[in-house]
Amino acid sequence: MSLFPDSIGLYTDYYELTMSCGYFRFGRHQEQAVFDYFFRTNPFDNGFTVFAGLRDLLDFVQHFRFSEEDLYYLSKQGFTHDFIDYLSGFSFTGRIESVEEGEIVFPGTPLLKVSGNLIETQLIESLVLNVLNFQSLVATKAFRIRQAAGKRLFSEFGLRRAQGLGAMMASRAACIGGADSTSNVMAAKKYDIPPSGTQAHSWIQSFPDELKAFRSFAEIHGESTILLVDTYDTLHSGIPNAIATAREMESRGIRLKAIRLDSGDLAYLSKKARQMLDKAGLTYVKIVVSNQLNEEVIRSLLQEQNAPIDAFGVGTELVSGKPDAALDGVYKLSEIDGIPKMKISENVQKITLPGNKQVVRFYDSEGFFFRDGIFLESETLSGELVIHHPVFPEKQTNVGGLKQEVLLHPVFENGHSLVPQKTPGEIYGFLKERIARLPVEHQRFIRPHLYKVGISGDLLNLRNNILGKYKK
Amino acid sequence: MSLFPDSIGLYTDYYELTMSCGYFRFGRHQEQAVFDYFFRTNPFDNGFTVFAGLRDLLDFVQHFRFSEEDLYYLSKQGFTHDFIDYLSGFSFTGRIESVEEGEIVFPGTPLLKVSGNLIETQLIESLVLNVLNFQSLVATKAFRIRQAAGKRLFSEFGLRRAQGLGAMMASRAACIGGADSTSNVMAAKKYDIPPSGTQAHSWIQSFPDELKAFRSFAEIHGESTILLVDTYDTLHSGIPNAIATAREMESRGIRLKAIRLDSGDLAYLSKKARQMLDKAGLTYVKIVVSNQLNEEVIRSLLQEQNAPIDAFGVGTELVSGKPDAALDGVYKLSEIDGIPKMKISENVQKITLPGNKQVVRFYDSEGFFFRDGIFLESETLSGELVIHHPVFPEKQTNVGGLKQEVLLHPVFENGHSLVPQKTPGEIYGFLKERIARLPVEHQRFIRPHLYKVGISGDLLNLRNNILGKYKK
Repeated sequence: MSLFPDSIGLYTDYYELTMSCGYFRFGRHQEQAVFDYFFRTNPFDNGFTVFAGLRDLLDFVQHFRFSEEDLYYLSKQGFTHDFIDYLSGFSFTGRIESVEEGEIVFPGTPLLKVSGNLIETQLIESLVLNVLNFQSLVATKAFRIRQAAGKRLFSEFGLRRAQGLGAMMASRAACIGGADSTSNVMAAKKYDIPPSGTQAHSWIQSFPDELKAFRSFAEIHGESTILLVDTYDTLHSGIPNAIATAREMESRGIRLKAIRLDSGDLAYLSKKARQMLDKAGLTYVKIVVSNQLNEEVIRSLLQEQNAPIDAFGVGTELVSGKPDAALDGVYKLSEIDGIPKMKISENVQKITLPGNKQVVRFYDSEGFFFRDGIFLESETLSGELVIHHPVFPEKQTNVGGLKQEVLLHPVFENGHSLVPQKTPGEIYGFLKERIARLPVEHQRFIRPHLYKVGISGDLLNLRNNILGKYKK
Repeated sequence: MSLFPDSIGLYTDYYELTMSCGYFRFGRHQEQAVFDYFFRTNPFDNGFTVFAGLRDLLDFVQHFRFSEEDLYYLSKQGFTHDFIDYLSGFSFTGRIESVEEGEIVFPGTPLLKVSGNLIETQLIESLVLNVLNFQSLVATKAFRIRQAAGKRLFSEFGLRRAQGLGAMMASRAACIGGADSTSNVMAAKKYDIPPSGTQAHSWIQSFPDELKAFRSFAEIHGESTILLVDTYDTLHSGIPNAIATAREMESRGIRLKAIRLDSGDLAYLSKKARQMLDKAGLTYVKIVVSNQLNEEVIRSLLQEQNAPIDAFGVGTELVSGKPDAALDGVYKLSEIDGIPKMKISENVQKITLPGNKQVVRFYDSEGFFFRDGIFLESETLSGELVIHHPVFPEKQTNVGGLKQEVLLHPVFENGHSLVPQKTPGEIYGFLKERIARLPVEHQRFIRPHLYKVGISGDLLNLRNNILGKYKK
């Protein structure tokens, strides 16, 4: 039995299939649709979101097929023969445009645009949402932790508390958002991330005493040795034994890399540990901490308490995107056969933007991001350019003459990804370049300034026309 | 490229490998170890936790091997040849005992016990934690939602907001905890869960008007038709069009199954919808609701507001186990070659229980669960029996003469699972039997009464002896 199949057409919501079956039965499967992916709220009250998940999504889209076993299952659910025949030859033949992975993005902006026939664009909805919502959530969380940790090392240690196989994408997204390494070896291999790890309490417990455990570990692992000092008593046993081990290592001409604190008051213990190590002449031995860390705790340790910590291992809250646990991304139909479509709602925030659109970022005169504008694909972006607040259109901004940057680019065509394979670390490099162009007031941890996204006059008119027709 | 490999030895934390390499190099890999899995806090302030994940865990343990590609990767990380040779023939040959899947369990109790050589018991640590922590979290959340929904239908709709591939285990665990069906087709097929789904706004938008969209859906899906009524205007368009469709269906001798509300005030709209449907003589048409539901919202809808709702679709908060997002389960060494081991900590709650243990549930005279007791495997459980509070041992309870039930049973031996393959629905059946024996005060939603778990006098003495020796 396979743990996870390679044909993943069934990784979808049941209603995608019931709808697709309907489209097929009505002979509508050649109609051309456009769907937008966007989210409505930045997670963690952050000032922006880090867009992540694209590479995995495109890999999955390429594997989006139905095996014989899948088709047999669907026939048992009552789907008709002609539709199942259609699915037997199914692959995604459409086109995907997207912002670049690692981009800084904002609520309400189309980040991924899927064009193709009505069935293929519908069937991948759940997949798009599943992958992008989660990885963007974790990448954003990771970047907050990176901001708190500054230049110190920060490793993702969350496999044991991750949400099942979600661990894989969590490790990847954590490194896109700025983690230096992961403890998850499978993710390290798959995504080309540096693996990292120290030792568990069980190692220490398995030896007759702590000193012997430390000494044995150092014997095997030499200069990469990190000693976990809280198995018995941090200050009276763990650190003294680590110091003894470090001295023995020095006599062999090698250096202990670090000690790790995994319980107790990390501010108090790290200060005591630093004093003890320094007093023993071991100023080069680093202090690593772990245990229920998040960006708030790390900020408090470093900024409020001046804890002399060199590296952080962050698990649960990072890989599960706590407390939000999900990004609220949605996937909405915007056009069929060239006819703009929208969802109308009593809640104005939930009215969608119709038509085939493009997103443009405008820069201010100092080279910082100034506004994102949503335009119809058909518009030419020169001369006078005004963008409007999407809910209060009388609020408008003139962006004419500003430096422009188109954000949506083709990433999947003719059954293949067009995106160069970058490691999570390389994508983080791109994120850092983008962060350098984001005004600092949007980077604030608490109550960041709102980055404004506007819509073009043409898009506004189109929306109002459709709303007007509907009201009649 | 495979989306998820079938040899999953690398689905582990890096330190499991560095430690195992150490054990191997010191020739300690034939030492016999025992590890316990337990958690410290019930999630969601619930009075108990639903134990889930066992079947998936055992499947994974069976696949826990290293492919050539894995071994090559490890050699590049600097692991030595002799250790890599050892891993090339690795499979888990140990023994696992566990409580039954769907069991009601409590903090501090060993729920799974892994015995085998020091390397194999260490290497599967991350896997045990990853699978059991997440599925037990979601099963517990699902049961809370089941309690709130009473006998009404409740479907899991969370694929789009689930944490990546964590979606698969989330769907399974949701149904162990009481969900009736899932929207995730791959999980439905893999785990034998009824799939369910209705239609998205895109279906409605794709037609020239809502009535045509409804009529077309009903034409294809007949008596299983559920109509989503909030695409344009629930009260003035969606429900009237659903009523018109239902009447057309009646003229063909078939019945509309339900309408679905997915936005707006669900209490208000469900009441209005019920009135409109009833007035049209469509008393048989059910009302399904979805949109950001959790157990608190469902309770409020039903109990505070008497909303006439027949079924719930629950997504995000269920599949991500919000707000907790993780169960705090740990995996701790308790014995090596017959010698009891424990972790000592400044925090008494974190001191572990040494030795090879068994868990026994005691029943009161009315047949309800009364206490769980943790004993050493070697103890005989007859005659006078007293169990002690694990932190304040002077608090004790006499459980002599009470009906006993051993909770840990062998589930994996000689490379194979011993557990009969049950569907999530069947496991939920077992959970319901167990719930019937749990005093109601532990089932309360808010501030449930604490169910007490004690340790035997022998175990207490063993712990105190080791602590005493350590202090010397």
